[in-house]
Amino acid sequence: MTTPRRLESYVCGRWTPGEKDGQTLLDAATGAPVATIDSSGIDFAATLAYGREVAGRKLRAMTFHERAAMLKALGLALMGQKEEFYAESLHTGATRPDGWIDIEGGIGTMLTFASKARRELPNTRVWTDGEVEALSKDSSFSAQHILTPLQGVAVHINAYNFPIWGMLEKIAPTLLAGVPCIVKPASQTAYLTELMVRRIIETGILPEGALQLISGSVGDLLDHVTGQDAVTFTGSAWTGRKLKSHKAIIENSTRFTMEADSLNAAILGPDAVAGTPEFDLFVKEVAREMTTKAGQKCTAIRRVIAPRGQVHALIAALRERLEKTPVGLPGTEGTRMGPLASLDQRVEVRDRIRELQADAEIVAGNPDEVRLSSGDAELGAFMNPVLLYAEKPLSAEKIHEVEAFGPVSTVMPYDVLDEAVHLAQLGKGSLVSSVFTDDPKVAEEMVLGVAPYHGRVLIGNRASAKTSTGHGSPLAPLVHGGPGRAGGGEEMGGMRGVKHYMQRTAVQGAPRLLSAVTGRWIEGAEANQGVHPFRKSLAELRIGDQLVTAARTVTLEDVEHFANFTGDTFYAHMDEAAAKANPFFDDRVAHGYLIASFAAGLFVEPNPGPVLANYGVDHMRFLAPVYFGDTLQVRLTCKEINPRANAEHGEVRWDCRVTNQKGETVAQYDVLTMVAKTWPAVAVAAE
Amino acid sequence: MTTPRRLESYVCGRWTPGEKDGQTLLDAATGAPVATIDSSGIDFAATLAYGREVAGRKLRAMTFHERAAMLKALGLALMGQKEEFYAESLHTGATRPDGWIDIEGGIGTMLTFASKARRELPNTRVWTDGEVEALSKDSSFSAQHILTPLQGVAVHINAYNFPIWGMLEKIAPTLLAGVPCIVKPASQTAYLTELMVRRIIETGILPEGALQLISGSVGDLLDHVTGQDAVTFTGSAWTGRKLKSHKAIIENSTRFTMEADSLNAAILGPDAVAGTPEFDLFVKEVAREMTTKAGQKCTAIRRVIAPRGQVHALIAALRERLEKTPVGLPGTEGTRMGPLASLDQRVEVRDRIRELQADAEIVAGNPDEVRLSSGDAELGAFMNPVLLYAEKPLSAEKIHEVEAFGPVSTVMPYDVLDEAVHLAQLGKGSLVSSVFTDDPKVAEEMVLGVAPYHGRVLIGNRASAKTSTGHGSPLAPLVHGGPGRAGGGEEMGGMRGVKHYMQRTAVQGAPRLLSAVTGRWIEGAEANQGVHPFRKSLAELRIGDQLVTAARTVTLEDVEHFANFTGDTFYAHMDEAAAKANPFFDDRVAHGYLIASFAAGLFVEPNPGPVLANYGVDHMRFLAPVYFGDTLQVRLTCKEINPRANAEHGEVRWDCRVTNQKGETVAQYDVLTMVAKTWPAVAVAAE
Repeated sequence: MTTPRRLESYVCGRWTPGEKDGQTLLDAATGAPVATIDSSGIDFAATLAYGREVAGRKLRAMTFHERAAMLKALGLALMGQKEEFYAESLHTGATRPDGWIDIEGGIGTMLTFASKARRELPNTRVWTDGEVEALSKDSSFSAQHILTPLQGVAVHINAYNFPIWGMLEKIAPTLLAGVPCIVKPASQTAYLTELMVRRIIETGILPEGALQLISGSVGDLLDHVTGQDAVTFTGSAWTGRKLKSHKAIIENSTRFTMEADSLNAAILGPDAVAGTPEFDLFVKEVAREMTTKAGQKCTAIRRVIAPRGQVHALIAALRERLEKTPVGLPGTEGTRMGPLASLDQRVEVRDRIRELQADAEIVAGNPDEVRLSSGDAELGAFMNPVLLYAEKPLSAEKIHEVEAFGPVSTVMPYDVLDEAVHLAQLGKGSLVSSVFTDDPKVAEEMVLGVAPYHGRVLIGNRASAKTSTGHGSPLAPLVHGGPGRAGGGEEMGGMRGVKHYMQRTAVQGAPRLLSAVTGRWIEGAEANQGVHPFRKSLAELRIGDQLVTAARTVTLEDVEHFANFTGDTFYAHMDEAAAKANPFFDDRVAHGYLIASFAAGLFVEPNPGPVLANYGVDHMRFLAPVYFGDTLQVRLTCKEINPRANAEHGEVRWDCRVTNQKGETVAQYDVLTMVAKTWPAVAVAAE
Repeated sequence: MTTPRRLESYVCGRWTPGEKDGQTLLDAATGAPVATIDSSGIDFAATLAYGREVAGRKLRAMTFHERAAMLKALGLALMGQKEEFYAESLHTGATRPDGWIDIEGGIGTMLTFASKARRELPNTRVWTDGEVEALSKDSSFSAQHILTPLQGVAVHINAYNFPIWGMLEKIAPTLLAGVPCIVKPASQTAYLTELMVRRIIETGILPEGALQLISGSVGDLLDHVTGQDAVTFTGSAWTGRKLKSHKAIIENSTRFTMEADSLNAAILGPDAVAGTPEFDLFVKEVAREMTTKAGQKCTAIRRVIAPRGQVHALIAALRERLEKTPVGLPGTEGTRMGPLASLDQRVEVRDRIRELQADAEIVAGNPDEVRLSSGDAELGAFMNPVLLYAEKPLSAEKIHEVEAFGPVSTVMPYDVLDEAVHLAQLGKGSLVSSVFTDDPKVAEEMVLGVAPYHGRVLIGNRASAKTSTGHGSPLAPLVHGGPGRAGGGEEMGGMRGVKHYMQRTAVQGAPRLLSAVTGRWIEGAEANQGVHPFRKSLAELRIGDQLVTAARTVTLEDVEHFANFTGDTFYAHMDEAAAKANPFFDDRVAHGYLIASFAAGLFVEPNPGPVLANYGVDHMRFLAPVYFGDTLQVRLTCKEINPRANAEHGEVRWDCRVTNQKGETVAQYDVLTMVAKTWPAVAVAAE
């Protein structure tokens, strides 16, 4: 028998074992000792301070794209070492498909955050939020909300079921925000988290201090959190509530996100009777959710809500699938479901089943009888799936309250659609529920009925059968979390998740100063005219560089010519009587596309130069009609500059305002261009 | 002496006094009894249930625009009765300008929410959040985040200083979200809130149960909140923390927003030396913030951070202003500052000043000596402004911790810019700070330095002197709240504030079903071709109505013709060598504006019809180059329909996809049109 590995914490720049013997962690399937863990002796206040002081400044000095590139490099490096993680993952009881969710799902989540950040965030340090609010009529006083990184650390306290995904889905948005992390995995499976943190630190990709690890208890760490720190917790509601009411967290209004118990439901639509593709998909999904990770998923289906007339067929179909599921050693060929995380956990699940039996009867499986395809039922925490049936779910309490965190679900009947929605709501807030239907009316009513109680709702039907990611899979672009019993938290959700670690601040002031703070040109801020800004590469171009063009009169001939040339003979341009009858116009008007085309004709610089392409237009609004004889003029101002990290060019956003001879704005929009980072000086000199 | 008015609560559809004698509320300036208040005997669980059941369903059945119209009507009705509120407001000690902030500021906030909602929210019940996330390559599985109203009530527990604004700024976003409110004002000034609630109920504009009032204690109300309710609190940190850790709030993860103590700072920039306009503006702002509402504002300036060299001049200028401020009866001509809210409050403020004196010396005013222009210093809670000076602010604690909620501020010096930022941060999170400077570099460094610790930062300078709304004024479009000591809450912020009372849910599924849930057409959802959709009024038009146009080939002649006609002779269209040298193109390409113009030519319907105007284009992206000889085709699909409440037309958003002969998408954008609600059937028949 090998000596169990000694887990260490990575704090204040070094790996350190605890001072005491600590707890011995056992293999879920064999009961063999895997590792020992202890964190005593760590100075937790110093750990927090180290993160804040050593890493915070370095991360905040990076732009969003630089942080995204860091995560991408890290994700690719970890993916290259995945087999080592899979091997270690077997000790947790995870089969290869279970491990895939945790390992490749976790690394994939980090990579998705990296690529979304490059596409959706600016390459800056300050993130503007929403539009400029004009607070004065003369543009002398405006406001802009900005997001800046918290100057503390994020403490991520994780559950035992996803030792890798649980860490990566949290640190990816945190690091993107520019905030250092301290991760504290649940002890039971901390050896896998610890292994990955070792590999992460070895890459040298993260700035020192950006990721610290506590293997073991967090000691008095929470006593030292401030209003600039954030604490997230995934695990039992009981522990979560204790942490949420911790004195320092309450007194400092420390951000606290919790993801706890959840009695997730799957609802079979009234149309999805036996024989329909939706019925079959539902059976597969429920059985899969019960057996994946041996049902130890926060998102697993705990309540199966079905039309009363379908219950018999449903139970029969589920029983058949569940009883055929081979349970055994996770690394053995043919095993479909591994053990629970520990023998203690099996005792816990059996106790919860007994509670559920107050409201429901067991219709498949036997919690006290283990049937295995491999392994030893005494040494490993094995358990076969258990299905219950609650005849009167509306008056039952336990089935809507008790989470048996294992391969356990309860079927319950409904008579009318409203009742199904009400049953789902009785869970008092869940991470996810699913609705299986092919009827748009049923989808609308059920999804909108359960939405306020959920962070995610999945609709299952034949059309998405092949591509659906399934009930139980949180995805990086979508929010993960739920109200009420589920903890009230929100994680991920794409770039929304990055905001959880940033402070939103409304900044008010004169546009010139506001512009200096946000790094974006704002109406009313200083503008610089001179060399045509299309002649400037990113090396020379500055926010506020501006061109005011010559004027051009729009004639009847122009409009008729354009109409005939493009085919756009819409009556408002061509038919005087119809135009006059239109509530928006007094006469025939010029095409919006003509205005934009003439505007471009006025502002472009024809000679080859650093402006490479117009890749789009944003928020174009035609604000006043252009009649024949009106004279247009354009003011084009450099508004935002985003150099790309790995290219010789970057995006430049221009504010384009088209006015008429009365000075009224007739059109306003953002012109989006690609501009080279450098351009031979001779071209500029030629101006 | 008149008998004090008996305040009542408005719960479960009726006005009801408490069962006991209750507390007597005194006029702040004269000490005369104004009202008595008591809430004993109220069934608070029933009050919550009444709001949820009677009003929730009615509010949720309305669209955002209907709720906005309701708030507008209510705001206008209340504005018409403002003089009655001003008269009652005098009892609180508020002068006319103080009353303006509370009364007209409050009603104005509600009106701003109403008009922003009409402009920025769709006229629907479901609010989509963010873009569609394509989760499969073949568009068979996608996701869309939606926001739906919480199905509980919002309990708003407010402070005594703004009995009207405090209520209206909270109920406006709550009602817009579709969630009923229960308001519990602080007893001291509850008579003014009660008066306004009486007037609100009398209008009959709100659905019954949408607004309930508790005059007096909330009793056991919080024991009955659920995960679908929300609780907001404005007041002392001590009470706020107690409420935040309330058992039911923790156990149900009830949303809790707190706005508590705040040691707001005003920083004088190093450039803003005596003699500059910024120095003078700073002096005026600090004096005004100290004396408005007798300094009883959560946003008032408590810490005045100034360059060491300016401290002497600053104190002299402030002392002169403060000592000249006439303090007296709020309704008397010439009074610039009224009393504190109560004699108890004066004792409290004097105690806090004594605490501050551990770190600072008084340099203007005397807390124990009252000098009045009118009124009686024994009967009324009068107090003259008190200015302190802390010589060593970096090592001081009390000045960054103790909030004297009255006309009290402390001046503190700094030597270098970083130190000023650090001093502001020592407040551990504030609602607002301001920076007075005319130097963009100073603005950038200071604002970004303090931003993570603040919900709002105001920049003051000469350019915005006339139009600035000032340090102390929260505005409806901007977030109000702050991290850490300030409570960690966020209120208002325009439509952001509406989201605080809604649940965000990621909905996943096949586009056809997803589209039914969101009310928006989504790529991959069903489309219906047939009658040209431009021939359909809103009465006939449906989401998914689609036109696939004829094809058109783009020729060299087209591009040269367009270039010469519009003047857009950009080299990528005209110069083969330069186009080929460009990293994005293999040859000369067509103009983006030409593609959009040809697309319009392909999809418009020339005859007079229900489509009235193209008012804009959103998110236009040119995704692939169009070379000479390429053939374009357009697919135009009705994506979103927003009928306007008070007009004969509405907005229709069309998904416009332009493809080439290889089926590649070369351009994609939303076309925005105005469409008539009805159109004579003959026109449609003519098709």
